[in-house]
Amino acid sequence: METMTQKRNIAVLGSTGSIGRQTLDIIAEYPQLFNAWLLVARSSADLLIQQARQLRPHMVIIADEQYYDYVRDALEDTGIEVATGSAAIAQAVTMPEIDTVVTAMVGYSGLESTIAAIRTNKRIALANKETLVVAGELIDRLLQDSKSVLYPVDSEHGAFYQCLVGERMEDVDKLWLTASGGPFRTMPKEQLSNVTAADALKHPNWSMGAKITIDSATMMNKGFEMIEARWLFGVMPDDIEIVVHPQSIIHSMVAFKDGSVKAQLGLPDMHLPIRYALGLPDRRLASDCRKMTIEDMASLTFERPDFDKFPLLGTAYEAARTGGTAPCVMNAANEIAVAAFLQDKIKFTDIHQIIEKTMEKVPHIDNPGYEDYVESNNAARAIAEELITKSKN
Amino acid sequence: METMTQKRNIAVLGSTGSIGRQTLDIIAEYPQLFNAWLLVARSSADLLIQQARQLRPHMVIIADEQYYDYVRDALEDTGIEVATGSAAIAQAVTMPEIDTVVTAMVGYSGLESTIAAIRTNKRIALANKETLVVAGELIDRLLQDSKSVLYPVDSEHGAFYQCLVGERMEDVDKLWLTASGGPFRTMPKEQLSNVTAADALKHPNWSMGAKITIDSATMMNKGFEMIEARWLFGVMPDDIEIVVHPQSIIHSMVAFKDGSVKAQLGLPDMHLPIRYALGLPDRRLASDCRKMTIEDMASLTFERPDFDKFPLLGTAYEAARTGGTAPCVMNAANEIAVAAFLQDKIKFTDIHQIIEKTMEKVPHIDNPGYEDYVESNNAARAIAEELITKSKN
Repeated sequence: METMTQKRNIAVLGSTGSIGRQTLDIIAEYPQLFNAWLLVARSSADLLIQQARQLRPHMVIIADEQYYDYVRDALEDTGIEVATGSAAIAQAVTMPEIDTVVTAMVGYSGLESTIAAIRTNKRIALANKETLVVAGELIDRLLQDSKSVLYPVDSEHGAFYQCLVGERMEDVDKLWLTASGGPFRTMPKEQLSNVTAADALKHPNWSMGAKITIDSATMMNKGFEMIEARWLFGVMPDDIEIVVHPQSIIHSMVAFKDGSVKAQLGLPDMHLPIRYALGLPDRRLASDCRKMTIEDMASLTFERPDFDKFPLLGTAYEAARTGGTAPCVMNAANEIAVAAFLQDKIKFTDIHQIIEKTMEKVPHIDNPGYEDYVESNNAARAIAEELITKSKN
Repeated sequence: METMTQKRNIAVLGSTGSIGRQTLDIIAEYPQLFNAWLLVARSSADLLIQQARQLRPHMVIIADEQYYDYVRDALEDTGIEVATGSAAIAQAVTMPEIDTVVTAMVGYSGLESTIAAIRTNKRIALANKETLVVAGELIDRLLQDSKSVLYPVDSEHGAFYQCLVGERMEDVDKLWLTASGGPFRTMPKEQLSNVTAADALKHPNWSMGAKITIDSATMMNKGFEMIEARWLFGVMPDDIEIVVHPQSIIHSMVAFKDGSVKAQLGLPDMHLPIRYALGLPDRRLASDCRKMTIEDMASLTFERPDFDKFPLLGTAYEAARTGGTAPCVMNAANEIAVAAFLQDKIKFTDIHQIIEKTMEKVPHIDNPGYEDYVESNNAARAIAEELITKSKN
């Protein structure tokens, strides 16, 4: 009876992406604890269909309307509800049966449905870091009037969370956010303008989607994580220090005012932080996957990041200090610039240029509401697109 | 008012030793939180007198009776009570004014007064690891009928404690006990028989007393800490793995069943774990001492210990598995053997021989009471002394 009571209906937004697939692995591993209630994908129709046939959710949503008929027809015999469009997503997450929403969509698209989940007091396993990057101020305000709790899914914030269990935030001196340094850590700065998308997609430790892998190569991802940590843990941007740790074994650290530091370690496997976030408030999801051994951590190194070679780190700190819509504009410009780089439209080092120029051009708004984010996001995308088109001509 | 209510009267047993002196530093640093109530030293009369004049405790005890008159006369004008003898110590710790007892005496001598402190429900900051090594079974039983709580003072168990805050013991897979490896970590095994007491006293990272430094060189100290952890955290000996980490930056780790590992790090400075233990249940004692930086942890290495070169590790695991009086006998033989080595009476490698032979000769007692420990301890000391005398002739 106890396990039945505790069984949680899960909505997985972005179920066909890297985090989404791993989340479904874990849901399938613990059928006595979890039930996939809602699966949402942008356009990977075949995988969504396959996932739905396996996990039998109450509902699936294919965001891109052109695949709607295809998905609906393929699932016709299953009785699974099929819907399409972003409005449907924001509405579906509010279903009272849903306990936990895993937000694993890519980029800005996660914001609306995360807000809907907060408004309906869901537990949120937050894998979509852009939500807090873009709209941290708004989310922070909304959480104050909600019973919703955000649990971080990515490894760094999961590490902070684990290091902070049982501790008081007033005793924290700094959060030390670890970074692998990406594929270009040891490359001389002057060679960075020649790197290709293929080079950037070779991440040394983590297997991730294309967009986040490029963000890792520019270290924009670490800037995003700094902003995410700022909101998740209620600290100032300058209370977060980035530490380059190429082995990705220590997933982050908390330095306390008494001189003590706590770290969380593990193999670089996203199943671990997903398992932890889904199992909270305790570590009920023991894993039978390979455990880390002493040999896995034979030699660990740590160094400070190179803000000169990875200027987006400085951009991110500046945006975080500025607040308002600055991080939203930075994120929008980054999405456009990364997409352009992946299509070989711009050079690797242009990503920073496009973002900085976009941030100069989009008007700043303090204390933004949802509509301000929408407008700033749209404006930033348009300007970034324009800058890219100009740079090509 | 709040700080007055919280002000704790502290008894420091072993105030003139390394841990004791550092404890007094911290008591002196926070006069609004702590008051030195009782200071106990074995024979360092002059330092005890100096400490008493500085901190003005209610009482001092010089254990060695030959210094009693000297200390009493020196403190005559202060109104501080002066006593002598081990019975006086066990009685003094029970004074109702005392809130916290810091047990920082060396070796077996800490047992009786620790038991007295448990019986009178004191908070115990345990720096005397031999107490749990010798009589863990008895202490464990006594704690069940007491409101007394043991807080570990040494860096490794403090690390376990900090990593376990907010966690459930049932989620723990292993405790990873880190060890510097001592001064002979890289020395070929065959050279160990020639090392001198002076060689062994050169510890690479920690500044400690002579006895514990030799225990570190033989790695007996790590065996003791394994047994101490076994009782402090209620785990089996084989749930504790020793990890050699020469930089002594990670002070120990906890591996959880879900594949996550938590570590506590810091500069190798005993003030930190003492500060933490005295400040519990929270980190109220923020430190203005130098904080660890990324550069302090630039490169951390980890390897498994060499049980062949440091056979006392195996001896300790075997004694812990056997239980009963086995660890008591091991500890007694070790105290005698280390003293003999420090006096150049035996070789470094003889320490292990003396201990193993003593353990063979002293009759084993299961489920021991206090008197069984006293007897076994006495028997082991006598046999170890005899073995040393024989080996000299």
